[in-house]
Amino acid sequence: MGNNLLIVHGGGPTAVLNSSLYGVITEAKNSSYVDKIYGAIGGSEAILTETFLDLGSISDSELELLLQTPGTAIGSSRFALEPEHYQKMADIFKKNDIKYVLFNGGNGTMDTCGKVHEVCVKEGINVVGIPKTMDNDIAIIDHAPGFGSAAKYIAQTTAEIGEDVKSLPIHVCIVEAMGRNAGWITAASALARKNKKDAPHLIYLPERPFNEEEFLEDVKRLYDELGGVVVVVSEGLKDKDGESIVPPIFKSDRAVYFGDVSAHLASLVIKKLGIKARGEKPGLAGRASMGLQSDIDREEAVLVGREAVKAAVSGQTGVMVAIQRVPGDEYKMETSLVPIRDVMLHEKVLPEQYINERGNDVTEEFINWCRPLIGGDLPSYLNFRDKL
Amino acid sequence: MGNNLLIVHGGGPTAVLNSSLYGVITEAKNSSYVDKIYGAIGGSEAILTETFLDLGSISDSELELLLQTPGTAIGSSRFALEPEHYQKMADIFKKNDIKYVLFNGGNGTMDTCGKVHEVCVKEGINVVGIPKTMDNDIAIIDHAPGFGSAAKYIAQTTAEIGEDVKSLPIHVCIVEAMGRNAGWITAASALARKNKKDAPHLIYLPERPFNEEEFLEDVKRLYDELGGVVVVVSEGLKDKDGESIVPPIFKSDRAVYFGDVSAHLASLVIKKLGIKARGEKPGLAGRASMGLQSDIDREEAVLVGREAVKAAVSGQTGVMVAIQRVPGDEYKMETSLVPIRDVMLHEKVLPEQYINERGNDVTEEFINWCRPLIGGDLPSYLNFRDKL
Repeated sequence: MGNNLLIVHGGGPTAVLNSSLYGVITEAKNSSYVDKIYGAIGGSEAILTETFLDLGSISDSELELLLQTPGTAIGSSRFALEPEHYQKMADIFKKNDIKYVLFNGGNGTMDTCGKVHEVCVKEGINVVGIPKTMDNDIAIIDHAPGFGSAAKYIAQTTAEIGEDVKSLPIHVCIVEAMGRNAGWITAASALARKNKKDAPHLIYLPERPFNEEEFLEDVKRLYDELGGVVVVVSEGLKDKDGESIVPPIFKSDRAVYFGDVSAHLASLVIKKLGIKARGEKPGLAGRASMGLQSDIDREEAVLVGREAVKAAVSGQTGVMVAIQRVPGDEYKMETSLVPIRDVMLHEKVLPEQYINERGNDVTEEFINWCRPLIGGDLPSYLNFRDKL
Repeated sequence: MGNNLLIVHGGGPTAVLNSSLYGVITEAKNSSYVDKIYGAIGGSEAILTETFLDLGSISDSELELLLQTPGTAIGSSRFALEPEHYQKMADIFKKNDIKYVLFNGGNGTMDTCGKVHEVCVKEGINVVGIPKTMDNDIAIIDHAPGFGSAAKYIAQTTAEIGEDVKSLPIHVCIVEAMGRNAGWITAASALARKNKKDAPHLIYLPERPFNEEEFLEDVKRLYDELGGVVVVVSEGLKDKDGESIVPPIFKSDRAVYFGDVSAHLASLVIKKLGIKARGEKPGLAGRASMGLQSDIDREEAVLVGREAVKAAVSGQTGVMVAIQRVPGDEYKMETSLVPIRDVMLHEKVLPEQYINERGNDVTEEFINWCRPLIGGDLPSYLNFRDKL
């Protein structure tokens, strides 16, 4: 019987999901405890269909392409597992001599990972989780791989749009950031600021009820002062009753589809204030842009992949690799292993101390927490308007 | 009396507008024919208010920041000039010992440039145009500085979104590109393709009337085949009657505001086909992203700035610096001077031979024309799905 390893991806991609995959494959290739390295091609669903690909035969130089490949190179799924699927998975693992199973994903995937662990523990199969979410909403850990790059994307893009809007300051630009329930990415746009009047001028988070009147007041005041205003908003803004501020555009049996918050708010500014406005929604570009990948994020993603392999081959199971921050002035992190049951389905939102009183900005405390994760300073610009 | 030079920016920024400014300032600093180098801070309007800043005192190392600064470092305006403004401008030039006036902009700005030239020619003031437009709709020239970077942005972003969508192929993603009347940028998304099934799977241009039924047919067929479909559309799609396919959301006395084409078409796919869909609109990021600036585009932008200074000091006036392509297998360009009156307000759209018969893609001929302008190959990816 062999000691094969299986890696499975769940949920949506991040800018560094394939970097963790690189960490897993290269570590497993070098481990004498691992025979074959299988990838489940298409998420949890691919386990049930035994759609496995041998990844161990890929050369190291080709594997390096993973560090700069967006999406997930082994696919993923949003397949809803039923209770009977777990035992079936365990049987498939045994049949394929799979002794180590790694799940890389967010809260939903960690829930799957925990349930798979429960059926596998009696079979001597080790199941380990690797954290991943651009949204940064996984509990217990300081931050998740994928977030640093999403933070760098929104920060640099906001800075660039800020320079553009400052050049011809006759409008309001509303930028929509991902993160429907947790405002971490939206908040990270604050890292764009170098000088006092820099974009973003306003930040609206899903953690606070959105107040339309206050929003229009804020925009008007800043427009009168600056001419060009950049506002960053979460895609998931809700009103005081917890209802989406965007009316649903379509309801199917499975889901409700909402319009874009950025377009909705730009239209509101035009109609209510008579000020020219446009909404931007980079959307998937915010997690697929390789040029704005954070170096720190990529390195940490590789590391958690490696650590997951090490944990599994050393006999650990039912655990997730966690990232903890080492207290001190310089940014330093370390990994540890935490029980999967402590992570499963807990959603971590921005704490109160990271949001300002009026709910239209973040605090200095948040900025200090977030800054190291984007991996270095954003570029400097030269604008002669600032010299007038 | 001095021989001062004034540089003025008109219209919206590009990713390399400040690179042309860098070319102008550094060339003028080294020219013995130029005394002071003034920037009009805020476009044509700034000429009338004499809002000039001396740019000649900025150190070369600080000036290099311009090559990586989005927007326009001397501002711009969309101020509508009246006939009486032109003579007033000539008087202001004389008062400030300005002998050389450079206008950097698109079609509208070249119109201004031509009219300023007409009043200045009798005063011995030389007026020269520098082309700039991300939209690439300036007549006569092969392409305009700013377009290559916009092309690289949409191509690489489409490739990245394509990898993301391929990872979890259960939806349609509609990406909106800038260019309301000319489809050059939208068309450039085709450069994203390396393999047969790569994104973009469909391209819809403003040069062809948009047919909703054919669009839905195309999307359905590709969704059934691929699971994940990426469609790139122009922000300015119109129906067979020349009306915007998006209903106006608001009319003011000055303008009509339309909704986003991407959101509109995503909603159509959801409602009519019952397929999950999302619309993305990178918007201003498409002309402000410095990470996706094209090297060739930046170099050419610097060059046309330098050439404009050389032309003005050598006594040329009423001309624009043009970029022409040298015939041959290798990409090579050269600059020349063309009369401003040949350029003024002519809008260049995609010619027929660059669009396929069904109007849902571009031709190989377009791709061959466009490829050199993005300055090198896009990154390669590793996706194991392709190996199944």
